[in-house]
Amino acid sequence: MAKTDSKDGKGGFVQRLTPRDVDFAQWYTDVVTLTDLCDYAPIRGCMVIKPYGTAIWERIQEEMDRRFKATGHENVMMPMLIPESLLLKEAEHVEGFAPEVAWVTQGGKETLQEKLAIRPTSEVLFSVMYAKWLQSWRDLPLLYNQWCSVMRWEKTTRPFLRTSEFWWQEGHTLHETAEEAQDETMRMLDIYRQVCEDELAMPVYMGMKSESEKFAGAVATYSIEAMMQDGKSLQAGTSHNFGDNFTKAYDITFLAKDGRLTHPFGTSWGTSTRLIGALIMAHGDERGLKLPPRIAPYQVVVVPVAQHKEGVMEGAKEVARRLEKAGVRVKFDGRDTVSPGFKFNEWELKGVPVRLEVGPRDLEAGQAVAVRRDTYEKTVVSLEGVVETVKGLLESAQASMFGKAKEFMESRTETVKGLDGLKEVAQRGFARAMWCGEAGCEEEIKAKTGAGTRNMPFDQTPFAETCVNCGKPARYVMYFAKAY
Amino acid sequence: MAKTDSKDGKGGFVQRLTPRDVDFAQWYTDVVTLTDLCDYAPIRGCMVIKPYGTAIWERIQEEMDRRFKATGHENVMMPMLIPESLLLKEAEHVEGFAPEVAWVTQGGKETLQEKLAIRPTSEVLFSVMYAKWLQSWRDLPLLYNQWCSVMRWEKTTRPFLRTSEFWWQEGHTLHETAEEAQDETMRMLDIYRQVCEDELAMPVYMGMKSESEKFAGAVATYSIEAMMQDGKSLQAGTSHNFGDNFTKAYDITFLAKDGRLTHPFGTSWGTSTRLIGALIMAHGDERGLKLPPRIAPYQVVVVPVAQHKEGVMEGAKEVARRLEKAGVRVKFDGRDTVSPGFKFNEWELKGVPVRLEVGPRDLEAGQAVAVRRDTYEKTVVSLEGVVETVKGLLESAQASMFGKAKEFMESRTETVKGLDGLKEVAQRGFARAMWCGEAGCEEEIKAKTGAGTRNMPFDQTPFAETCVNCGKPARYVMYFAKAY
Repeated sequence: MAKTDSKDGKGGFVQRLTPRDVDFAQWYTDVVTLTDLCDYAPIRGCMVIKPYGTAIWERIQEEMDRRFKATGHENVMMPMLIPESLLLKEAEHVEGFAPEVAWVTQGGKETLQEKLAIRPTSEVLFSVMYAKWLQSWRDLPLLYNQWCSVMRWEKTTRPFLRTSEFWWQEGHTLHETAEEAQDETMRMLDIYRQVCEDELAMPVYMGMKSESEKFAGAVATYSIEAMMQDGKSLQAGTSHNFGDNFTKAYDITFLAKDGRLTHPFGTSWGTSTRLIGALIMAHGDERGLKLPPRIAPYQVVVVPVAQHKEGVMEGAKEVARRLEKAGVRVKFDGRDTVSPGFKFNEWELKGVPVRLEVGPRDLEAGQAVAVRRDTYEKTVVSLEGVVETVKGLLESAQASMFGKAKEFMESRTETVKGLDGLKEVAQRGFARAMWCGEAGCEEEIKAKTGAGTRNMPFDQTPFAETCVNCGKPARYVMYFAKAY
Repeated sequence: MAKTDSKDGKGGFVQRLTPRDVDFAQWYTDVVTLTDLCDYAPIRGCMVIKPYGTAIWERIQEEMDRRFKATGHENVMMPMLIPESLLLKEAEHVEGFAPEVAWVTQGGKETLQEKLAIRPTSEVLFSVMYAKWLQSWRDLPLLYNQWCSVMRWEKTTRPFLRTSEFWWQEGHTLHETAEEAQDETMRMLDIYRQVCEDELAMPVYMGMKSESEKFAGAVATYSIEAMMQDGKSLQAGTSHNFGDNFTKAYDITFLAKDGRLTHPFGTSWGTSTRLIGALIMAHGDERGLKLPPRIAPYQVVVVPVAQHKEGVMEGAKEVARRLEKAGVRVKFDGRDTVSPGFKFNEWELKGVPVRLEVGPRDLEAGQAVAVRRDTYEKTVVSLEGVVETVKGLLESAQASMFGKAKEFMESRTETVKGLDGLKEVAQRGFARAMWCGEAGCEEEIKAKTGAGTRNMPFDQTPFAETCVNCGKPARYVMYFAKAY
């Protein structure tokens, strides 16, 4: 629990937040801790997601899950353990994940004959089950997803961004043709874009990862990349086309229309609790978290002012009730142990999009004061039309937060033609450059500039003939940036 | 995927179901497999919950979660691993769970200095975090819940009923006073009863477990016990009052109103994917699963008849659309690879509460044929009022399924005064007996009759003076039964 050292409503929380421009990393840690989103667990590299963080995750889940189901996907629940022998079947996949697996070697008092991995991801289990379930082309496509946590034994960890255990969804699908698998890969990438842009108010660049950055076992990996306020990139979701790599390795076949046993084509796609870290760094400011209304656990906080005066508590509660009845997510803060000013600061820190102050004179005048978290704009609103007005404010805040983030991202994305330019631009944002496509060159760029490849946009119209670094013929338009 | 050996609509599935009265256990296994609820995983004692089973679990989750939140509880997400040293602090708790813990001893390539348990339950983690979070009486109560899976290294397993890994929710709360903790324990037990009776149409007996059956570390454990159709009991949920056992063991204190550092009082409560097994065995019949409408993933299946005829597909789809728009969960089965009769059997097997058959003559006459799964009752319904009629059928089916299950449970619960009576009644249901309360006597009864203590009802009006077994003074009214 974050300790608060000021109950005077004069900005105790704000004083404790490191300014973003002084130390962005420390600002992030301060926000995470002070807003009660999560806490460090007594297990190396693991976190506890507290109620406020969990409520944000539940909102993200809801938005994702609704879109998954609308596109024909169904949820399943797979075991968390994978026998070592099964993990070893797809060579690239093992190589990619084995170094970071947590192993169960003992069950009760018995030493296991075969050790079991806590899933770092579940391609293997889905593959084994698909091999059992799939019979005929009539069964295809298989469109499954699961919500769970996975474990990767990380050395350096940061809340939400990189932890040994994290929560995510992983979609795993099988298709009759390579083309259908590619369509699915793109469909889910675009659903991720939609959730990020429309719900999290966070613009992203969609594109394909480089060979060396693609998922272990995939033919191609696509990502959405969001820009944080320090100009760094955060990979907010990935969608993989597996071709028939996994279906061959795990011997998954189906009886095709032509009567032949055929390997289907697979995809997988995932987003995780990282998105909460992204939300913080994409929108937060000097007063703390700033949540887009569509994803905020509480969209409005109603704070009674001079609540000891007759009728104030009841009047303020009535406003909260009306909003709640209209489907607005409302928090009524009737605590009598702290001042209204303290509450204002606390809910600004927690990023609640709209605050409604209701005092005795407001009630007399049939009004309340609304304050938008994203702009600090104050409006006097008539209680009569409070539901409509508040809904309007929430919509404006959502649109304005997205607009602001998009403008920021665009202003910090620059096309560069040389390595000096790339290096300079990567100090503050994304460098769009022509690149040869060689892994060695990619490493060199990283070493010289600190910026790695992020993804290759779908618009590959070239603007130079040679690679930004090595001078060889350029093959790709690539975004370079420092990254989380 | 269950293989279907009949596509003639003449009862292929039904022929493959072992009759309930021949072998109830085999009937259960047949239903689980043929309905595609779950499958065996390639890890000892673990299962995969398939889309249909997961959809049922999501409905149960929704109903539970709504009630948890309405009573002030919030969700959190805790890590899945618990360091051994932390697990060892509450003596009874360790003793109860240590024999069935899966241990992680290796992370990546490194051997861990301290082994980590995959959580069998999370009292320990909640306690450790509560010790950190709780400061003052103002923070109380702490009312947290989490949805997750847990692992218990079981020797003999059965789908949904007992598996090494299973999915559940676990609530963990802290309170200022012992009385408040007891109130919470009862409140959550009653919420479990509500969900079972009102949503799952499954009546339960609420009561307190015996000393030897209570949770490891609890002061008192309460349960809800449901009766399966073979007369056995299934513990469908438990709610534990911990007193200050855990808060003392884990040194959780708060600054009380009187200024003294005080140990709060705790509870925990859980329900799991066992409930799906309970649903099957409480309601299923000779044609398979029978789902209560409120929990069914599909409440209505619309089956076009003679679908190749002009207008049939479109007309049937329109009916499905109207129902869906009215909030009914509908499956439209437009497959042209199997006959209507095949579909009828399949959806009966899967327990969909109402089937709507829509053929060309029905459409001409502006009607459809509705068939209730629970009674096989056929009704001709006018398409004009189809939404209202179907909603009415669903409500009737829900009420009637509950009524039938309740009647069954009551008719199979008998008050007994001697051990012979207890033994005889336990062959077909629950025996209500007076009991001395001694663990040794409890074991003896189990050995002699096969029936164990289930729980002690809240109405403890005595009806005999001596124990049903040992003849010592009777202290409790106790339900005895065989159990899952």
